[in-house]
Amino acid sequence: MKPRELSPQECAAILSKSKYGRLGLSMNDRPYVVPMSFVYFGGKLYLHSSGRGKKVEFATKNPHACFQVDLLDKNRWSSVITYGTVKLSAEMEAKLRMFDIFIKTEMEGHGGKQFDRDAVDKMDMTIWEIEIKEMTGREGIW
Amino acid sequence: MKPRELSPQECAAILSKSKYGRLGLSMNDRPYVVPMSFVYFGGKLYLHSSGRGKKVEFATKNPHACFQVDLLDKNRWSSVITYGTVKLSAEMEAKLRMFDIFIKTEMEGHGGKQFDRDAVDKMDMTIWEIEIKEMTGREGIW
Repeated sequence: MKPRELSPQECAAILSKSKYGRLGLSMNDRPYVVPMSFVYFGGKLYLHSSGRGKKVEFATKNPHACFQVDLLDKNRWSSVITYGTVKLSAEMEAKLRMFDIFIKTEMEGHGGKQFDRDAVDKMDMTIWEIEIKEMTGREGIW
Repeated sequence: MKPRELSPQECAAILSKSKYGRLGLSMNDRPYVVPMSFVYFGGKLYLHSSGRGKKVEFATKNPHACFQVDLLDKNRWSSVITYGTVKLSAEMEAKLRMFDIFIKTEMEGHGGKQFDRDAVDKMDMTIWEIEIKEMTGREGIW
């Protein structure tokens, strides 16, 4: 059966209810995929990581990103693929923006743990904001 | 808590028991991530798709691939990231190789449906063989 294209509203609904996705980056045309938790809000994806490591190196050298989210089960799948540009920041302002969005979207952090504003301030945390420039979605059977 | 590095044996075990992963490709340094089913056998990943579409275009122009597999739950995650080079083929020989591997690994196809040798011959199917050149794995808590 041919996969069905999802509408922008259906894509946004999948992004809104998902907590994990896979970030795709590229450097010197070598692709890199890594699972990350995220929040979708106002047309942007918000992620966070430490300030070091391979993904930060890749995104610093080439901000083009693909972020992919899916719902897979035994015989059905739906997948949303977003494309955008990464902005990295370790500033308190970016941390607070993410903190506010976690509150607004009722995403209370990983594993149900609460976010604490003071703790966020002290964390070695890099905020990833990806403004979605293009988005496609499909659903089908395997 | 700092993530723990997985041994090559632990990575192979995760690949062996998984059915779905995310393929990362890149063209002109624009990353692309797409979910695909796969089988891991003898140090290679075997995937299949139709002969057209974005992923075939990307892999034809740039065979460098990253294939990522993970087990995510509420507060624990493990992830295996493999790097390799894609070989695409629509030849019957490649189709039969994949067919044999599906039998050997007892992966009977998607959603439990049986593979039929004659049906495979007639299918518009491109076989993806990715020889893994590098592999890393980690597990941790969110």
